[in-house]
Parts: sequence; C-alpha cells; structure tokens
Amino acid sequence: MDKKLSIYLDDSIDTPLYIQLFLQLKNLIVEGVFRPNEKLPPIRKLAQQLRVNTITVVNAYKRLESEGLAYSIVGSGTYVASSTRHEQPLQPRDETEHLRMMEKGQIQVKEDTINFASTTPTPDLFPVDSFKALINRVLDRDKGEAFGYQQVQGYQPLRQSICDYLKNFSIDVLVDDIQVISGAQQGIDIVSKALIEYGDCVFVESPTYRGALEAFKSRGAKIVEIPMQEDGIDIETLKRSLATYNPKFIYIMPNFQNPTGYSYSHEKKLEILKIAREHNTFIVEDDFLSELSFTGGHSLPLKSLDRRQVVIYIKSFSKIFMPGLRLGFMAVPESLRGRVLAAKHTSDISTSGLIQRTFDLYLRENIWMEHINYMKDKYKKRYEIFLEAVRKSFPKSVRYKAPGGGLHMWFELPPGYSDQELYARCLKRGVLITPGSLFYSEGADTGHFRMSFAAVHSEKIETGVKIVGEVLHEYLGESTAPAIQIQEYSPFL
Amino acid sequence: MDKKLSIYLDDSIDTPLYIQLFLQLKNLIVEGVFRPNEKLPPIRKLAQQLRVNTITVVNAYKRLESEGLAYSIVGSGTYVASSTRHEQPLQPRDETEHLRMMEKGQIQVKEDTINFASTTPTPDLFPVDSFKALINRVLDRDKGEAFGYQQVQGYQPLRQSICDYLKNFSIDVLVDDIQVISGAQQGIDIVSKALIEYGDCVFVESPTYRGALEAFKSRGAKIVEIPMQEDGIDIETLKRSLATYNPKFIYIMPNFQNPTGYSYSHEKKLEILKIAREHNTFIVEDDFLSELSFTGGHSLPLKSLDRRQVVIYIKSFSKIFMPGLRLGFMAVPESLRGRVLAAKHTSDISTSGLIQRTFDLYLRENIWMEHINYMKDKYKKRYEIFLEAVRKSFPKSVRYKAPGGGLHMWFELPPGYSDQELYARCLKRGVLITPGSLFYSEGADTGHFRMSFAAVHSEKIETGVKIVGEVLHEYLGESTAPAIQIQEYSPFL
Repeated sequence: MDKKLSIYLDDSIDTPLYIQLFLQLKNLIVEGVFRPNEKLPPIRKLAQQLRVNTITVVNAYKRLESEGLAYSIVGSGTYVASSTRHEQPLQPRDETEHLRMMEKGQIQVKEDTINFASTTPTPDLFPVDSFKALINRVLDRDKGEAFGYQQVQGYQPLRQSICDYLKNFSIDVLVDDIQVISGAQQGIDIVSKALIEYGDCVFVESPTYRGALEAFKSRGAKIVEIPMQEDGIDIETLKRSLATYNPKFIYIMPNFQNPTGYSYSHEKKLEILKIAREHNTFIVEDDFLSELSFTGGHSLPLKSLDRRQVVIYIKSFSKIFMPGLRLGFMAVPESLRGRVLAAKHTSDISTSGLIQRTFDLYLRENIWMEHINYMKDKYKKRYEIFLEAVRKSFPKSVRYKAPGGGLHMWFELPPGYSDQELYARCLKRGVLITPGSLFYSEGADTGHFRMSFAAVHSEKIETGVKIVGEVLHEYLGESTAPAIQIQEYSPFL
Repeated sequence: MDKKLSIYLDDSIDTPLYIQLFLQLKNLIVEGVFRPNEKLPPIRKLAQQLRVNTITVVNAYKRLESEGLAYSIVGSGTYVASSTRHEQPLQPRDETEHLRMMEKGQIQVKEDTINFASTTPTPDLFPVDSFKALINRVLDRDKGEAFGYQQVQGYQPLRQSICDYLKNFSIDVLVDDIQVISGAQQGIDIVSKALIEYGDCVFVESPTYRGALEAFKSRGAKIVEIPMQEDGIDIETLKRSLATYNPKFIYIMPNFQNPTGYSYSHEKKLEILKIAREHNTFIVEDDFLSELSFTGGHSLPLKSLDRRQVVIYIKSFSKIFMPGLRLGFMAVPESLRGRVLAAKHTSDISTSGLIQRTFDLYLRENIWMEHINYMKDKYKKRYEIFLEAVRKSFPKSVRYKAPGGGLHMWFELPPGYSDQELYARCLKRGVLITPGSLFYSEGADTGHFRMSFAAVHSEKIETGVKIVGEVLHEYLGESTAPAIQIQEYSPFL
C-alpha cells in the first residue's frame, strides 16, 4: 500500500475532501500507478489511513465511477476501469478550478461570456453622480473628521438614519441596537466570532449561501443543514433536529432566499420565531433583498415580527446599491451588544467613516428610496424577460418556482442528472450558471442550479437562457441513460 | 457557601477574569454579604467552584488587599478587612469601565482632557484637499466600475503601486504576493483565520498590541508571551520556549514596537529569521511605523531581510495617514496565498474599491511620500518637545528609553508601584495615559505605562507631561510604603 503515501488531503482549503481525493486518485489512475482492473483500496481502510470519514472515500469512488474511471462489483469492491484512456466528457480539474474561483468570487469571465452566476448589479446601474455630489459635501462639511477613527459601533447620525429607514419595514429598534458593518459578509463573520466557540453547532437552511458556510466552518462549528421548502425551512426536520442538537443560532434568509429564491410564508415566520424562543436559541436573519419584491406582495423581514429579541438582523446595502462600498448594518438584541461590539473591534476596528457619512446623507435625503425604486423597475423588467425566456426554452422536466422578487431562480434537474455536468456543458457554450453543489456544506451534487439575472443586460438574457435551454435539451435527451449516479441527498451529510 | 452562587465570570468579555472576580467580591464585601474579619473562601476551593485557575483567585484576593478591602494571614487565609467603609483611593468599577472602553477604542474623552493614550493623528494633519481632488478624479475616470466588487486580492494597479513603493524599504515582492486589507487589524484577523486552529500555539512579544491578543484568543489560540528587551525579543527565552511549544507563528513589531517603542537590532532581526526557518514557523511582522524614524538611522522592515519566505508582512497606512479609511496590505509567502485569500473572502469579500483606487493614485503620484515627510516633520517636533518635557518633569526613578522614532514611549515605575493606580490618578487630573496592564495577555499590573504624542498638539504636550510628572512625584514620594504587592511578572502567566 505504498500508493496511499502520495495522497495528501488538505482540509484547510475550500475544495471538498472527496473532490481532492477523487482528483488525486484520478491522477494515480491516469499515470498508471493503479493499473486497469486493479482493485482500489477498501473504503474503510483508505478512510482510516487518510483519517477521513468513510463517506469521503465513498463519494470519491462514486465520482471515479461516474467519470468512467472505475467500476464497482457488489460485495467485492471498486476497480479501475479497463480502459481509462477514453475521451473524458469533462475536464474535472478545470471544472474544480472554476468552482473554487466561483467560491472565491474570482471567476475570470471572458468578455463574451453570459454571466448568470454573478448576483452583482452591472456598474451602469450605480448612482455615481449622486454619490459624487454627496461625498464632496461630506468632505467640505467634515474635513479631517471624516478620516479619523469612527466609533466602533458606527457613526451615530448614520445609526439614527438607519433606525428611521427601518420603520419603512415595520422594524422598530433603538440607535444603540445598530452596529455598522463593512458589508453583510462581515456581519456573518462577526456573529460567528461573537457566538460560535469551537465545536458549537449551527443550523442552516439547505441549500444556503456559501460564504456563511465558510465563516461558520472557519470557527470550527458543526453545521446541521435543514432542508428548505418552497414556503420556508422544513419545520418538522427543524424540530427533530432541535431534539438532538442545541444550536447557537439558526441562520436563515426569509425573503428571496439564496440560492432558492423562496420566501417564508407568514405562518412559518411566526413558527420559527416561536421555536427559537422555546429552544432558547437565536435566529440570524440575513436580509439582502427584502426590498426587491416585484409582485406588490408583502415581504416583511422576520425582524419586524421579533418581539422577544431573538433575531440578529444582518442587512447589506450591496446587492441593490454598490457592492464595492462595503457597507451594511446589524440590529442586535441587547444581550449580545457587547459581544458583537468586541467582535467588530477585533475584525477591523471600524468601518470607513467617509463611506458612513456619505451614506448617512443618502438616507437622510431620501435619495436612497428613489434609488431602490429605480433598481426595482430595472430588475423587474429583467426578471420578466428572464422568466418568459425560461418558459419558452427550458424542457418541461426542469422544475422551478417563480420567486416574485429577488435576483435569481433555482432549478431542479430530473433525478439522476448532475449539476456539475450541466455547469461544464454550459460553460463550453459561453454561459455561466452556478451549480447547486456550491450551496451544500459537503458540495453534494443534487442536480440543482441557480441562475441570476442581476448582471446580465436585458438584450442578452434571452440569448443566454436560450443557450442553456439547448444544453438542457441535449443533456436530458441523450439516448443513453444518465451516466452519473447522484449521491443520495441527506441534509445531515 | 451560598455566596459563591452569585459570582459569574464571563470569559467572552475583555475584562480579565481576576478583575471580574475582584469586582464581584468587592460588591459582596461592600454589600455586607461577607462581614468584616470573615474568612474568604479558600483559594483552591473557590477556583474549583468557579472553574478558573487558582492564579485568578490569587490575583483577585491580592487586588482586594491592595484596595484595603481584605488582609491575609500567612498560613491561614484571606480575611475581609475590619472596616471597609473607608474612603477608596480608586473607583475600580469606573477604572475598569475606562479600561474596557480604552480596549475597545471607545474612550469618551472630555474635551479638555489631555490624551496621551490615543495613537491616532489629530484630524488637522489629514491631507483632505489632496484626497478630495484624487477621489473626484477616480469617480470621473472609473464611474460605476469603482463601485463594483473588486478582486478579493485587491485592485491590481494598487497592488502594483504597493510593490513599487516597497522598493523604498528594500522589500522585493511580486504583485501576486500582495493582499489588500481593510486596515492592519483585519490583517491580524486574517492571519489568525488562515493559520490558527483551535488549541494552536502562538508566540507574541510581551508586552504587545492588545488587538492582536484579542484576535488570537478569539481563535482559541494558546498564547505564549516572550519578554521584549530594549534591542528586541528575548532570544534565549524564545529558544527555550521553542523547545516546548510548536507555534504557528511569532507575532512581532520589529520597529518602534507597540507599546515599548523599542526596535530590534540588526543582529536580532537576522537571528529571529534564522530561528523561524530552523523551527519551521512563520513570523508575522506588524509594521505600522517603520517610516517614522527621527534619527536618520535605519529601520528596515524584517521583510526586507526575508530570503526564505517566512515573514508575513502586515502594513497599515492608518497611523500616518487617515485611520478612518481602513486600508492596508499584506505581503504573503507564496505557500500561504490561497489560505489568506480564502480568509479575506470570508471576512468581508473585498476592500472598498473606491478607496483602493484613490490610494493607488496617491502612491503613483508620489503624494504619499510627500505626506510621509510632512508627517515626519510634525511628529519629530512633537517627539522632541515630549522628550524634553519628560526629562524636566519626571522623577529619576521612572525608567524609559528614548525610541528615536514612532509615536509613543514606555515607562517603568520603581518596583512595587501600580500602573493602574497611576492611570487613575492621572485621569483625576485630566490626563489620559495607557496603563501597561492592557498590553499583557492576562492584564498583569507590572508597573509600566505608555504615553503617545500622536494626538496631542505641541502646546499641550508640555502641560500634560508636567501634570503626569507631578502625579508621579506625589505617588512615588508618599511616605507610606507602596500599598500594592505587584504580581510577579511571568511571561507564561
């Protein structure tokens, strides 16, 4: 068993261990270290030697099989395929590279790629002129004061403006409840620092935002994934899980969830608040899109219903304002103020005073509300074009639910098809989608994908969706049975 | 033993446990729960019940004694003082509040307080006009692009400018070695995320920067404090400690260290590089003041001598530029790039693009170098006035070393005197200094204090130093023997 010596798994990087193992095994096979029809190491033994869970080895072996590099014989084991020199349908190394870059927000998109992966508005939508006028007003008014250290909690007048703004969403909080942050990701990081000790448990919706998973993992949290349904988190599974685990908090996005676009029903909002109170845990509400409702229906934040201070509310201004500014805030239950403040201080001391002061003027002069309405119009138009194109071009066997707001939609392939395969095929055609695997803690390929219309101009949306439709028809219509054995989906994987 | 039930120690807040315990015991005494001459719980027993180290209880009891609230009888135990209603020389609750606020950078300084605690330049020194001109140029040039998400690693042209700038300090790195960060504190946080797993060990200079201690502790690191000497870290203790521990990195400030102001000799710089290589560990160099040498002597960063990629270099532009901008960078060994990038992404995705682009112009047009020279002139003047005033006003028994650069100086009281007592006495006279206890992991009162001249105008420096001199003469000259038993200093406390 010399062969295992050359396998090295690094759990400090983002690539799932089973993918790392798969790639290295693949290399050993391609390089001929493992010979055709040779038996691969028994799962349990290899898992022991590499000090990983057996499921990691199982998944790596499955992946080898799905790539045609190995086959299994029931009751005997897994073997290297007879011929491994056949044309590969994917370049998994490239694909994995691509996935990692997507995770890091670092995709190097070719200029003519149609990018349904990004949820960032196109720069032409940013209100540059009004921003320029206001920043100059701040510089003339505050001079050097704008550049000193700010209060760790945030510039006081801005916190006041935020409180006033929140009244529009029926949220009633005090100036001292507000903690200014450098974007929502920092809010997630700060909550993690304030609440998670090594080995603590955290509940998340499944699927969920990758950046949150990474932050929780980085603190050594055990992550329990609760399935997301079309009207919100699966309450029954949540209750069952609460019988077993004692989570520090439940991280959710009640409106236009990322990646599914689903919103909680009013009943589920009330229910989860009740459950959190009863189980004495917090809810972290990541509200990045409440404003973007296109149907005129209500999409009140959970925080507006929070009478018992169980909701830690995180709000980003990025998605519908200017992501590069890095500005957001949290509304924090009083019992957590001190810990959140300490975590903010450890993170970056304070958020840029100049940006805080400029944004304060935005809110005070209602330019912000005007801007939201402008963006809502723009996005609504893109949304309608997108939806229409999907109806026209996608095979009927691809399932989705129109979210009625937000910036993205979630699609489900028929059973047995792989989202990573679809991703790779679309990429070859110059269209970027996000494979669903990115939104599961262990990167499970459940045959879902997300498409966002935030970064694609109206005239390109139709073209892009049409191409994805063609790829789907081709992939789903292939006469051979689907080559890939999908891993069974388990929320607790 | 009902009494112990009302004691609650919270190790998630910054106040040292022994201070928390001291304050709560004090309340119990003042409220009469413990009666005069009643024996306090045995040290070992109380420590067990509270699940703290015995040293915590020892320190709390010592503090009670030093405040006249208790006395000890050798071989018997500690007892409540006969009369506890006498005038208290300090208001420890206020003092502790003050200390906590200092730690959080939140001191609410009265307008006429002379503030030797802050190391932040006064706002009149900020280059507001040039900044305004450049930010408008960026807005006109880049428009919406300035507000999109930036590369996680940082705006590429800025990283190039930084590489060029570093040549002035004999640092030769590649554009891809540079990671832009939102200030030095974030750099420390990112290094912690990238390298520290729960239970890992980290070496620091002792005393050291509080914000670093907090970041390391937040990751669950074991912190080993290596004494700082006038020419750099104590190499012998470092070597001995390396025989016992295997640190992930050694965190140091080789030039004008905070809080001591000491700089490493060239020999010690070479020595610590050698040691790090031999023991296969990294050095985290926090360089916040290299530029500010007033004597014309060399103060090259350690990174300029790093031939083997062992130094992670963190550079802030805050102290001599504009702290509220939140901008800095790291130069990272190639082997750590991926991990640092992932940690930055988890922290706040990216640093404000507008600020990055504006600062890039600063560097490109050499306005930055002009500004440094301007600040150097200003600070040199303040330094000289400060030093002269100290020579005139301070008792000879107070030891210090003129640092020849930087923004602060470190003073040592004669044995047996308390820096927290001195801090409280100065505060009563309207002068703020920083008690040395803030710079030790466990808050040990070793009779040191730091004074910075960054935030005090020249004309106030003399007045302020004179007042501190008077307080010192009074405190050190009191006819009674010093009331306080200083805890023995131990770097491994």
